[in-house]
Amino acid sequence: MQDKSFLMIPGPTPVPESVLVELARHPIGHRSKEFSDIFMSCTEDLKWLAKTKDSDAFIYTASGTGAMEAAISNIINPGDKVLSLVIGVFGKRFSQIAQIYGADVEVMNVEMGKIIDPKALEERLGKDSKKEIKAVTVTHSETSTGAANDLERIAKIVKTHGALLLVDAVTSLGCMNLDIDGWGLDVVISGSQKGFMIPPGLSFIYVSPKAWEVNKKAKAPRFYFDFARHKKSLAEETTPWTPNVSLVCVLKKAFDMMKKEGLENIFSRHKRLRDNLRSGMKELGLKLLVEVDKDASCAITSIYPPEGVSVPDIRSAYKKDWDITVANGQDILKDKIFRIGHLGFVSDRDIEMTLAVTQKIFAKLRKN
Amino acid sequence: MQDKSFLMIPGPTPVPESVLVELARHPIGHRSKEFSDIFMSCTEDLKWLAKTKDSDAFIYTASGTGAMEAAISNIINPGDKVLSLVIGVFGKRFSQIAQIYGADVEVMNVEMGKIIDPKALEERLGKDSKKEIKAVTVTHSETSTGAANDLERIAKIVKTHGALLLVDAVTSLGCMNLDIDGWGLDVVISGSQKGFMIPPGLSFIYVSPKAWEVNKKAKAPRFYFDFARHKKSLAEETTPWTPNVSLVCVLKKAFDMMKKEGLENIFSRHKRLRDNLRSGMKELGLKLLVEVDKDASCAITSIYPPEGVSVPDIRSAYKKDWDITVANGQDILKDKIFRIGHLGFVSDRDIEMTLAVTQKIFAKLRKN
Repeated sequence: MQDKSFLMIPGPTPVPESVLVELARHPIGHRSKEFSDIFMSCTEDLKWLAKTKDSDAFIYTASGTGAMEAAISNIINPGDKVLSLVIGVFGKRFSQIAQIYGADVEVMNVEMGKIIDPKALEERLGKDSKKEIKAVTVTHSETSTGAANDLERIAKIVKTHGALLLVDAVTSLGCMNLDIDGWGLDVVISGSQKGFMIPPGLSFIYVSPKAWEVNKKAKAPRFYFDFARHKKSLAEETTPWTPNVSLVCVLKKAFDMMKKEGLENIFSRHKRLRDNLRSGMKELGLKLLVEVDKDASCAITSIYPPEGVSVPDIRSAYKKDWDITVANGQDILKDKIFRIGHLGFVSDRDIEMTLAVTQKIFAKLRKN
Repeated sequence: MQDKSFLMIPGPTPVPESVLVELARHPIGHRSKEFSDIFMSCTEDLKWLAKTKDSDAFIYTASGTGAMEAAISNIINPGDKVLSLVIGVFGKRFSQIAQIYGADVEVMNVEMGKIIDPKALEERLGKDSKKEIKAVTVTHSETSTGAANDLERIAKIVKTHGALLLVDAVTSLGCMNLDIDGWGLDVVISGSQKGFMIPPGLSFIYVSPKAWEVNKKAKAPRFYFDFARHKKSLAEETTPWTPNVSLVCVLKKAFDMMKKEGLENIFSRHKRLRDNLRSGMKELGLKLLVEVDKDASCAITSIYPPEGVSVPDIRSAYKKDWDITVANGQDILKDKIFRIGHLGFVSDRDIEMTLAVTQKIFAKLRKN
């Protein structure tokens, strides 16, 4: 049905009406006082969301992958030893970018759907008595599987070792608790089309004082994403290059909504959406990729199709019969699982609807 | 007056109603057939706009500076000799990025408001008998001054020499004729908030077959802006990373308008806006930074304030009394000139209004 499309993919996500209405306004000038005020308000709200006073927060006009590259290019020098914790496609991308920038990358990986065992990490870092490992890359919530690492524990272990911790929080920030100052995260990235409830086009990056120290010696050529250039402009309450002014303006609207809901309510809502979707899918007899409940991301759930039913048929049924877009698996999980995003502007009603629709879909597909 | 703001800066520019209305729609999934169709249509229209069949056209979620960095990082290796033709702030930025990527940069520059003398370029390249100069960077329309180089003639000279020509067409594309295949341009960049009439957040880059040959040997670390990754995805009718889907969808709307108006009409409209604004300002007794009419950009005009009147006072009068935002000068021209953008969604009526308002402003300011 026209205009009834509903996105249940892990970004872009549904967008609140007040954001859409704001998007339809004429852009304002990016060197105006009006824009500076909105931009600085968003910068402060970014710090509130990730619980940091010590880190700087920058807004890039780019998608999350741009911020991921920035986390590497502003920190890593050729030959630096990097330990990449890989639990899926996006963790792999982080390690790949580190390799492209000349890092000596060691990958610790697990089966898709599992998370990093903190004890294995502790053991590995414990062996690095010469402190050769300069940085650890980790994915908080892995979009390709729906598994979520125990970031707090990982951070504690990495802190004890002394390496920098670079965190992909693209699908976790704004959905799951993340405490930059409390946990000691050094570089954290995220993207607008996720927990932030606005369209894609902006990404966010946080830089800790410890990361700034390392950044001083970073030699990779860089310009657009250069931390120092963004910091210099931030001190002048602006951006170094023309930002996506429309998205920054709607980001403020989204933050207003988030602050009204409150951080703890946002996190508990996402946890409830996850728990209800997982238990509902299990009741429908479906198997989940992430088996252990506490290892499951609050942003996205990966589901195996029932025996004899194909993922393309399932996605097609959601789309054609119910106007719902769900995601396929990625990489080796393509056509093996389907993924339902439940991050950002998603309510309990949406999960109930999804379960009701899913029941109808499988009743029909199993019959055929 | 609320909601009456009118931008006459060189981007962001005014945005047509049909674009604003489209912006207010829910984003669609970026891996959908629906999005692929829109994306491929925009890619084709980009090629139409810059008159190329041979070059690839990519859409980046980034501002023009990101595309400028891409033009360097995908082409230039450390030690490569680059000749940068600098007529203002953005030409300087191009040379600066080349330096950051390790190029041996030679700058040919002129006074702000002037353009590159093709004969001087011919002479310089003529002396390079060993063909050591690998690439020439040039700004078509220099946003900081409102001067526009004779790109066709420059391209001819560079082609005779054999170097690659990297072109900043951020404020010229969609305003002034630019013929990639006909003139032999190798890498051309532009941005969405200019002649394209949509908000900032996308940039565009064209890559010629000759540039692809050089790209094969480019060694700088790069990922987000990497030509090859974008080309691989383009073959699959998609983008390598999540694009700003909303802006790509409205870009299609803007292209529909541009195709309806027709390329020659677009160019002649911009030329008329420039000519009328320039002659009107001269009639008001104001001096223009770009003295020679044919050297003036069709996108932006830089104007000296009358003796005894300050640029901040002028900008404040436009803003407070008339709800019009005009730009200050940049760099050494700050507070020395003010700049009026007339690119994109600007009509003859807007120029008449601007001249009428300008007359009132100076009548008042001169009296004080």
